[in-house]
Amino acid sequence: MRADAQRNRDRLVAVAAEVVAEQGADASLEEIARRAGVGSATLHRHFGGRVALLEAVFQSGIDAVCDQAEQLADHPEPLRALTIWLRGMVAHSTASRGLGPALKLSAERGSDCHRRILAAGGRLVERAQRDGAVPADVRIEDLLKLVNGISLASGEDAAQADRLLTLALRGIAPALA
Amino acid sequence: MRADAQRNRDRLVAVAAEVVAEQGADASLEEIARRAGVGSATLHRHFGGRVALLEAVFQSGIDAVCDQAEQLADHPEPLRALTIWLRGMVAHSTASRGLGPALKLSAERGSDCHRRILAAGGRLVERAQRDGAVPADVRIEDLLKLVNGISLASGEDAAQADRLLTLALRGIAPALA
Repeated sequence: MRADAQRNRDRLVAVAAEVVAEQGADASLEEIARRAGVGSATLHRHFGGRVALLEAVFQSGIDAVCDQAEQLADHPEPLRALTIWLRGMVAHSTASRGLGPALKLSAERGSDCHRRILAAGGRLVERAQRDGAVPADVRIEDLLKLVNGISLASGEDAAQADRLLTLALRGIAPALA
Repeated sequence: MRADAQRNRDRLVAVAAEVVAEQGADASLEEIARRAGVGSATLHRHFGGRVALLEAVFQSGIDAVCDQAEQLADHPEPLRALTIWLRGMVAHSTASRGLGPALKLSAERGSDCHRRILAAGGRLVERAQRDGAVPADVRIEDLLKLVNGISLASGEDAAQADRLLTLALRGIAPALA
């Protein structure tokens, strides 16, 4: 793809992520094209239609979450790195809420995304555990399930989701730890 | 209602709760009547049909959860009382999973149930807070949202749900508290 075409595509995905977070999976494609400064024909040339655009938005969210984990891998405070990442995961999950039913990700693609996130987050958990900040029996699989549950229970209320994550991080009754 | 009719009704609800937890909202009404030791005609005389029976199952679950909170109100260990109750809430929520779409609870009934649970659980939280076992800023509303999220994320996997509740009780990183 030519460099300017790639730039257009990247900008379309970034703008679509914003508009979809505001309006949901049936956001106006015309508005996405307009805000990205391209014509509707350019949007359709890149993505064909809504489902392919939503898949690209979803994939870019996964990429961002995994990239962030890599950037945090040598953060001087391992627990802080983990909490920053978990907050990002909750925000990503809450912003993608409603995207699910519109996506037609193959099971293979889905499990590939899941594996990447498990590996990226798992390294942050292990580092925080070696640092003594997280109990040794905490598993990244359970953390991701909890993040998913927090997002499901909070709907589109990002502040609520963040409050529930804080509760789970500190513990309802930390003395039990 | 005559005493034996009331006993039949109570037994039908208790058996239905078991069968629905095993088979979901489309459980066999014939099997429920059979296990309760009554004829199908008796089941239909009491409940008319499936929706009314499911509502009675749901209502009996709410009653059990609220009754349990009252019984735990003077438990000698306030934190233990709260954790027992939260485990019961997660189990109730996980067992009722799938009941939701089949129910036609009015918004008024739903919010009445919610208010009763909030009040019952709120007293257990306050007592554990007075005892110093739970941080003062923990709100029963958030705990119930978290319980709901844990149940949503765990599907019908009761062991998974219990593990996530334990994680949230102790905290992912208790040192943050």
